[in-house]
Amino acid sequence: MNYRMIFHTLGRIAIVLAILLVIPAVLALCLGEASWWAIAITVGISLAIGLVLMLCLKPKDKVIFAKEGLIIVSLSWIYVSAIGALPFVITPSPAKLGYIDAFFEMCSGFSTTGATILTGDKIDTLYMTDKALLFWRSFTHWIGGMGVVVFLMAFETGDSNRGMHILRAEMPGPTVDKIVPRARNTAKILYLLYIGFTVVETVALIIAGAVADKLPIGENIFDAVVHAFGTAGTGGFSVRGSSIAYYSAAYQWIITAFMILFGINFNLYYLMLLRKFRQAFGSRELWIFMGIIAVSMTAISIDLALANLPFAQNAHDTVRHSLFQVAAFISTTGYSSIPDGLNINSFPLLSLGILFLLMFIGGMAGSTGGGLKVSRVVILCKAVKKELRKVLHPRNANAVKFEGKIVSDETLHSVTSYFGLYMLILAATFIVLCFDTSVAGYATSVGSNISAVESNITAAVSCINNIGPAYGVAASGYYMYNWLSKLVMSFAMLIGRLEIYPILLAFAPTTWIKR
Amino acid sequence: MNYRMIFHTLGRIAIVLAILLVIPAVLALCLGEASWWAIAITVGISLAIGLVLMLCLKPKDKVIFAKEGLIIVSLSWIYVSAIGALPFVITPSPAKLGYIDAFFEMCSGFSTTGATILTGDKIDTLYMTDKALLFWRSFTHWIGGMGVVVFLMAFETGDSNRGMHILRAEMPGPTVDKIVPRARNTAKILYLLYIGFTVVETVALIIAGAVADKLPIGENIFDAVVHAFGTAGTGGFSVRGSSIAYYSAAYQWIITAFMILFGINFNLYYLMLLRKFRQAFGSRELWIFMGIIAVSMTAISIDLALANLPFAQNAHDTVRHSLFQVAAFISTTGYSSIPDGLNINSFPLLSLGILFLLMFIGGMAGSTGGGLKVSRVVILCKAVKKELRKVLHPRNANAVKFEGKIVSDETLHSVTSYFGLYMLILAATFIVLCFDTSVAGYATSVGSNISAVESNITAAVSCINNIGPAYGVAASGYYMYNWLSKLVMSFAMLIGRLEIYPILLAFAPTTWIKR
Repeated sequence: MNYRMIFHTLGRIAIVLAILLVIPAVLALCLGEASWWAIAITVGISLAIGLVLMLCLKPKDKVIFAKEGLIIVSLSWIYVSAIGALPFVITPSPAKLGYIDAFFEMCSGFSTTGATILTGDKIDTLYMTDKALLFWRSFTHWIGGMGVVVFLMAFETGDSNRGMHILRAEMPGPTVDKIVPRARNTAKILYLLYIGFTVVETVALIIAGAVADKLPIGENIFDAVVHAFGTAGTGGFSVRGSSIAYYSAAYQWIITAFMILFGINFNLYYLMLLRKFRQAFGSRELWIFMGIIAVSMTAISIDLALANLPFAQNAHDTVRHSLFQVAAFISTTGYSSIPDGLNINSFPLLSLGILFLLMFIGGMAGSTGGGLKVSRVVILCKAVKKELRKVLHPRNANAVKFEGKIVSDETLHSVTSYFGLYMLILAATFIVLCFDTSVAGYATSVGSNISAVESNITAAVSCINNIGPAYGVAASGYYMYNWLSKLVMSFAMLIGRLEIYPILLAFAPTTWIKR
Repeated sequence: MNYRMIFHTLGRIAIVLAILLVIPAVLALCLGEASWWAIAITVGISLAIGLVLMLCLKPKDKVIFAKEGLIIVSLSWIYVSAIGALPFVITPSPAKLGYIDAFFEMCSGFSTTGATILTGDKIDTLYMTDKALLFWRSFTHWIGGMGVVVFLMAFETGDSNRGMHILRAEMPGPTVDKIVPRARNTAKILYLLYIGFTVVETVALIIAGAVADKLPIGENIFDAVVHAFGTAGTGGFSVRGSSIAYYSAAYQWIITAFMILFGINFNLYYLMLLRKFRQAFGSRELWIFMGIIAVSMTAISIDLALANLPFAQNAHDTVRHSLFQVAAFISTTGYSSIPDGLNINSFPLLSLGILFLLMFIGGMAGSTGGGLKVSRVVILCKAVKKELRKVLHPRNANAVKFEGKIVSDETLHSVTSYFGLYMLILAATFIVLCFDTSVAGYATSVGSNISAVESNITAAVSCINNIGPAYGVAASGYYMYNWLSKLVMSFAMLIGRLEIYPILLAFAPTTWIKR
């Protein structure tokens, strides 16, 4: 294995992190916030580590294979989370966190989960004292959404022939098709689209914030930017204790629209840019994704109407909250629009059931969304259907088709076994949470109407699928969990974002022991 | 498709059912119970249906293929549940039930689930008034355990070349190996072993009942027989409101031992009879099964000890209740040993988590237990491991081995897609339960410390895996659900027992429409 190349690249990542951290550092200085030097120190540390790794480990050859690609990606993500957490630990401000909490927050950030150990009140205080760190917290969503190493690929100079493995490892979905021959250019195009959408959303939010919410100009811009980051990465960190419920209906509709847009495969947008509309709108996955959203929204709207909840007294509110929650769950963003100190736990049963299943489905392949991905679910269903046919007619074996192409048996099997692995990891996470909460209990007592078993199930599901706020305890905040649970969930989030293999391989001894 | 053969066989099944129903009818007469004629009428009905089908549909040729085998099996199971329910509907006694409740109870019986819509008090009254119907209820466990059609195969006379398909369709597990060349003889041997074990358990229970529980002779024999039926089929119907908690520790230990014994592959017992001990004890699956039980028991014992529950104040009680519950869940029997009006909901979190996962694993292939089956879980893990290796080294593909044999890719894929299908059906059942309970609510109000979402998850998991009592609402009884939920759960139980394919195919239009 090409160790030098791995750590050399890790060095580059360290430097990228340092550069990215400069932005919140400057912001802190401008706002005169105490945490500016905490961020500055972190910049220094990451810069030092980066230079040491790059200079000491000059790679003899730059060739890497799938294995190296996976290791680079997983180490990079662990690195940025581990170092990105430092400002929260060093700062003297109210934003100060224990290291594990900070690490959890960063894993949640980069993995675009949006699960937070901060309580609503804490967030509201930080909004007064630590905008810079809140900005950094949301910025990690934006970086993690499209990919940390892909970011490096897209913007670094010099030749790079290691693109495809990285792209495969960081891009969500069962299959990754380069939209242009060279992987690097693919990365560049994707990032440009990504930036474009983020800018558009920011502007839209600023207008809504000014017109509908009458926010002071400074706040307005800040809120728009962080929420654009949160939506773009389908992350879900908010800078308000009550999440998006703090804002006007207009503001919420914009967020809803972009949560759905960022749940769509970016290749389709590129096709539209090339005016290949027929090809773009010919995507089966797109229509299935939209279909699931439409059906879920309708069902939940009716369910909410029947339940007659305080925040859904008229048709518009009912539909708004239904669609918002559906978009938040299927895109795995995890924002909430539920006001009056209520949360998702107040939803009726059918709605909770549907949202629970949406967590598994997630966004489209090639989007910034998490979950299993729509296409993987579709292929899973087709594999199952094929097996059923085989039981009936052991002889004939019809080929499975998706998106007009024949799906190779290889893909079918890799998808079904991926699903198996995914459920095994889910079970493992769940059982550790049960162990921890059984032995150590929750940090704070859990309301008697919240079942702890359910909370542990939903928390595990939510972390692995990168949703963030789920329900049960998970709805009201992850701070109730103990350090072990937090640590396990942190890795569960990274595992989910990188689709399991990279992280597993990084921790498999066979990866490191030379034979 | 050979329709005549299908309905001809169904006719034979109808007659078998009539014959089996004679036993409780006679018992009712001896005990002078009001329901004797209700059972007698049902005998008549089934006899009539059977004769009509057999005489009107003489098959031209007796050859059947996989498809016919699956249809025969699923129609037979639906038939016996639908007709076996009649006595409960017709009887004038306190045992009288609505048809859907009775159908639920019979599906639960034949599928060896043991989920009941009867409350503890109701069962205790029936014990006074309707022993015969309670006997029938438990007897269905025994029949369903080894298989309805297999029963016909084993004991019918005349040639039969349709054995293997039936055996495959009714025998649990990913692969079925005939232990002797002819399928019919395999069925016979399995049933003889099954009868043998049941007799041994009955005797053991009678002794324990007389010595430890000091039960009156009549009660003692009756209880022993029905509980032997319940254990043999890994069903879980009890004739006491408090299930096995009603009896002494000795009684509970015997049940525990047999729950585990009936969770083991019967082929191994046959090998032991042939004195092929090395081969029998060489089974990897056996040791994995035992390992899971040992680990779970240890973990739950410690968890219970820490929780310091009223029924687990000393080491013996703690271990007894832990092992009992572990055996009850992994064998998917679902008996309970938890006294003092408490139920599984009073268990600490880790224990609940472990038991939740055990529900999925289930017994060994070729046992009477439900669930995914240990071997299927093992093969799933191996398939996943193979996929992981493939990610690292796309070139080389090591063969997967289990039980000393190479597992074909075909088996690997059928297992992984089976798991996918299984989870999809679980999700579907769950969402219907959510819909029903959201629209219609529960029949009776649910305690505020029980989460309805969790109840619906565990109820769905429990029905599909044929456990019966789960936790949440499912622990205290299924009567809280409405008719739609009961109907869906009834079919979920049959689907689980027959491992999905037969029932699905029976309802697939393509099965019936000639092309």
